Amino acid sequence: MGQDPIGRLIGELGRLPGVGERSAARLAYYIIRASRQHAGYSLARDLAAALEDVDAHVGLCSTCQNLCAFDRCPVCADPKRDTTLLCVVEGVADLRAMERSGGYRGVYHVLHGVLSPLDGIGPQELKIDRLLTRVQQTQVREVVLATNANMEGDATALYISHVLADKGMQVTRLATGIPQGGELEYLDGATLAMALSQRRAFAAK
Amino acid sequence: MGQDPIGRLIGELGRLPGVGERSAARLAYYIIRASRQHAGYSLARDLAAALEDVDAHVGLCSTCQNLCAFDRCPVCADPKRDTTLLCVVEGVADLRAMERSGGYRGVYHVLHGVLSPLDGIGPQELKIDRLLTRVQQTQVREVVLATNANMEGDATALYISHVLADKGMQVTRLATGIPQGGELEYLDGATLAMALSQRRAFAAK
Repeated sequence: MGQDPIGRLIGELGRLPGVGERSAARLAYYIIRASRQHAGYSLARDLAAALEDVDAHVGLCSTCQNLCAFDRCPVCADPKRDTTLLCVVEGVADLRAMERSGGYRGVYHVLHGVLSPLDGIGPQELKIDRLLTRVQQTQVREVVLATNANMEGDATALYISHVLADKGMQVTRLATGIPQGGELEYLDGATLAMALSQRRAFAAK
Repeated sequence: MGQDPIGRLIGELGRLPGVGERSAARLAYYIIRASRQHAGYSLARDLAAALEDVDAHVGLCSTCQNLCAFDRCPVCADPKRDTTLLCVVEGVADLRAMERSGGYRGVYHVLHGVLSPLDGIGPQELKIDRLLTRVQQTQVREVVLATNANMEGDATALYISHVLADKGMQVTRLATGIPQGGELEYLDGATLAMALSQRRAFAAK
């Protein structure tokens, strides 16, 4: 391994999710070619520097557990965010998706997982008590449970809603139903059945 | 960019082929998570080190143009390889595929491309004269043209076969036809037509 830099790089790239041995080799050759073609410019060096930077500087936001380079993440550090509105998400990618939607102006709490008893992940592993303490110490008006709409996400949302039940704040869950642009013909039965059972009043203005 | 290590890493990963913005973010979060979970072990650091290593140490084999960490690649440095048998491949990934097949004991010549007049890649860019010099200076008995079985690969093979025409060695091309395990029902017409036109004599022993 120490003898062969190319084999080593292929091995390291192969540790990434969704990257098999052949993809790793393809990526490695691409990186090497891109790094050799232009003098004074190297994809390998740039990528290595970015990785080192992340390794050295990225930690968890002390407030919301978002990944960030400083003690407080950009969302928590933004004075314009509504701190009385708290959105609970499973992971950082979900927070990112919420931010991308552009429709949310509150703050977050990142669980870094979902309840999964079979995998040994309970309330303690998700540090639910930390969420509880935060909710009690700050003036949160509403907690939006934005865990995924699958079994684990639902169970986690249900558990948190129980924990927050009589703490004096509103607890909500993201709406479920037909996605924007969804066509009934191509929709799975479970989504359609749920959209039907949760149908809402509708009237011409 | 310099402010946000995570965004920087996502940007660098997004420069890899086949990695869009969302995949880049997913990879970045995976790397960060994998690098934080275990003390003293960091995927980010390992990957960065492998990239630095490649950037610093990988060059072209002075004999066959294969990528390698030393002046001579492992194939050229292996005294057991048959240097009278020379296989011409388009790229390093092809060399790797040939080696993986386990059926080849000769040496290689890597073109790092194919003839493609529209992209401005001619014999000069592929350093075909270098191949010619090598073939003339060493005792090559047979040149196997192992460029891809597509238009550019065929054209490149044809060109090289012309150049080597009266240099006194045998010039061969990889066989084309139905792949191992191939079923006629699912085969494309071009492959089947070619397999038919190149059918070979067959007799029970």
